[in-house]
Amino acid sequence: MTAISSRMTRFADVNSAVLQFLTNSDYTRKAGEPGICDFAIGNPHEMPLPGLISALEYQLQPKTEEWYAYTMNESGAVQTVVQSLKDRYGLAIEPENVIMTTGGFSAISIAIHAVTDPGDEVIFNSPPWFFYEAMLQGAGCIPVRVKVRPDNFDLDLEAIRAAITPKTRAIIVNSPNNPTGKIYPPETLRALADILTEASARNGRIIYLFSDEAYRRILYDGVEYSSPIKYYVPTFMLYTYGKQTLAPGQRIGYIALPSAMPDVRSVALACLTAQLTVGFAQPNALLQHALADIEKTCLDLEHLQYKRDWMIRELRNIGYDVHLPEGTFYLLPRSPIPDDQQFIRLLAEQNVLCLPGELIEMPGYFRVSLTANDSMIERGLPGFKAAFEAARA
Amino acid sequence: MTAISSRMTRFADVNSAVLQFLTNSDYTRKAGEPGICDFAIGNPHEMPLPGLISALEYQLQPKTEEWYAYTMNESGAVQTVVQSLKDRYGLAIEPENVIMTTGGFSAISIAIHAVTDPGDEVIFNSPPWFFYEAMLQGAGCIPVRVKVRPDNFDLDLEAIRAAITPKTRAIIVNSPNNPTGKIYPPETLRALADILTEASARNGRIIYLFSDEAYRRILYDGVEYSSPIKYYVPTFMLYTYGKQTLAPGQRIGYIALPSAMPDVRSVALACLTAQLTVGFAQPNALLQHALADIEKTCLDLEHLQYKRDWMIRELRNIGYDVHLPEGTFYLLPRSPIPDDQQFIRLLAEQNVLCLPGELIEMPGYFRVSLTANDSMIERGLPGFKAAFEAARA
Repeated sequence: MTAISSRMTRFADVNSAVLQFLTNSDYTRKAGEPGICDFAIGNPHEMPLPGLISALEYQLQPKTEEWYAYTMNESGAVQTVVQSLKDRYGLAIEPENVIMTTGGFSAISIAIHAVTDPGDEVIFNSPPWFFYEAMLQGAGCIPVRVKVRPDNFDLDLEAIRAAITPKTRAIIVNSPNNPTGKIYPPETLRALADILTEASARNGRIIYLFSDEAYRRILYDGVEYSSPIKYYVPTFMLYTYGKQTLAPGQRIGYIALPSAMPDVRSVALACLTAQLTVGFAQPNALLQHALADIEKTCLDLEHLQYKRDWMIRELRNIGYDVHLPEGTFYLLPRSPIPDDQQFIRLLAEQNVLCLPGELIEMPGYFRVSLTANDSMIERGLPGFKAAFEAARA
Repeated sequence: MTAISSRMTRFADVNSAVLQFLTNSDYTRKAGEPGICDFAIGNPHEMPLPGLISALEYQLQPKTEEWYAYTMNESGAVQTVVQSLKDRYGLAIEPENVIMTTGGFSAISIAIHAVTDPGDEVIFNSPPWFFYEAMLQGAGCIPVRVKVRPDNFDLDLEAIRAAITPKTRAIIVNSPNNPTGKIYPPETLRALADILTEASARNGRIIYLFSDEAYRRILYDGVEYSSPIKYYVPTFMLYTYGKQTLAPGQRIGYIALPSAMPDVRSVALACLTAQLTVGFAQPNALLQHALADIEKTCLDLEHLQYKRDWMIRELRNIGYDVHLPEGTFYLLPRSPIPDDQQFIRLLAEQNVLCLPGELIEMPGYFRVSLTANDSMIERGLPGFKAAFEAARA
């Protein structure tokens, strides 16, 4: 394939299972069909939140000549972020250290480009989000995989310590974690900070923490969220509004850097140049104008928790082994047979679409998105039962 | 600066003059002040086009549950592009070879990532758009600069031929050209195609043409536009709606690939993976829904031509040496003194903001954006006269 670049060939290799799932699979053949119960992807299956629509509607009519001009870090949007971080988490972030991005994808890409060079190693924890590894490879970095603890899905601190080398430049931490639903507790984050601080000193070069906090607002049981940024200064806080609004097609997010980060002005400027390099990864003007209202918009967490509890109760009744997630949209049941791809096919025969664990480095599991609507759950549960019985037969 | 990556340090070095202009200059200090006449950047100085607002307004209310779900190449938007290319230019592009992008910036970035690898050489013509060189460097490519012909700003075909090496992977062609306003004629494009075809055969590897057509709809005097894609098959047509709508804060554009391009399906898939790599560089859902109406929306070219002719007449009367552009928003007068940066300061003293030629590799010239409104032109012309006289004093 000399027609395309080796980097994109590698990307396709690393993500071949995901790309096939997204472009040519039971999922693509069946999703959207009447009667299909779609639990595969964290996509909406109810009408968009009225708060999102009214936020956009309210800002649509231009108020100035520059309303739709080149928009980078629009001061109103930045101020919304600063105030939100102060009110929600007691964090004091300077406006000049907030970089508005087109959602979480580009926040990750920009962080990578801003501080890593080709050949740098970046640690990520497995199970990971689909695209960490390929995005790191695309940027010329060496992805280093560390499995989380199998007993409780917490970070495996000793394995992280052992994975650090003189070439380690960053570690990606995703809490609440997709797909395990785990929130890493303060004591884990504190111990991780000690490990990174010590290793940075030994290396004579900062090891950054990229904190992917996409699901930070999707929490159950009134649990509190602790950001790694509270424990480790050289942290890129990466956020997207795509989860809380469940509108990933209207992309806005940000990077926030603590004032105490060494050379923070240079890092913020490197984020700006990285945005230009990857292709003007600034969110659209309308979304930035609407951010003060979007900030207040969040899907109905009570209803989400109801769906979580309902499904867990029923899945356990059927016989599934499934743990209780603390956050995110996802359940992660064990497949009743070792081959999760085959079990996903059994579910698809019942018109139930789920994500095979193989795609998220959790072989023997499968992922269920709670963004399915009540009717899909109602109709889907007998399918989960029939597939379970077929697998056990 | 070990806090940031070497690639971003290089980016900042290459674009230091541009970054300073955009972040800390007479331009940033004075732009937007009352009385200021802003000719510096191709940004709007009149209210947004009503057609753009109504296009967005009409599609804002969600029609389906998936209205704001993950959006890649939305079929309605792709169909709009296919139909537009057929109607306007008689081109037959397959829907599967259209890749929707967040404007021109990301179209360029995606093309680079899709088919080049680190170490590949990419030729660009000078004067270039600000960010070609830095984007190429950011992607690990080696930028190779070829000056256009000084007599008529046409491509210098012999210089391009001489610049091609076995490592050449692509050439960027920008017609109509920012900042010269030149449209490269069919005979130039045909001869360029011959050069590239011959060199590709010699190299045993395709040399792609990245055709940056951002200003394709901004034409004067009823002139016809010829795309390089008509003459050379391995061409990435790169388009953005940001110029025709003069709304660069609402970003939508595309890459179109000809069906006859070798391995075209692989190339289109490489574009998709490149979009994921750089950070989900797909345009927002609302813009894709609205594209059929946005496609019909264009700034008032008659009025733009009126402003061009008015300013050229007056600038020539004052004594400026300025040629007639065939397209784009820009005039490119010679600075009356060799030091264009100093002349820009003289203009700024008159509350007239322009872009120094040094920033666009045209030392001794300066750039005037015709997106200034009539009142700015009216008020600015005496300033152009006073600065001219001060420079000659």
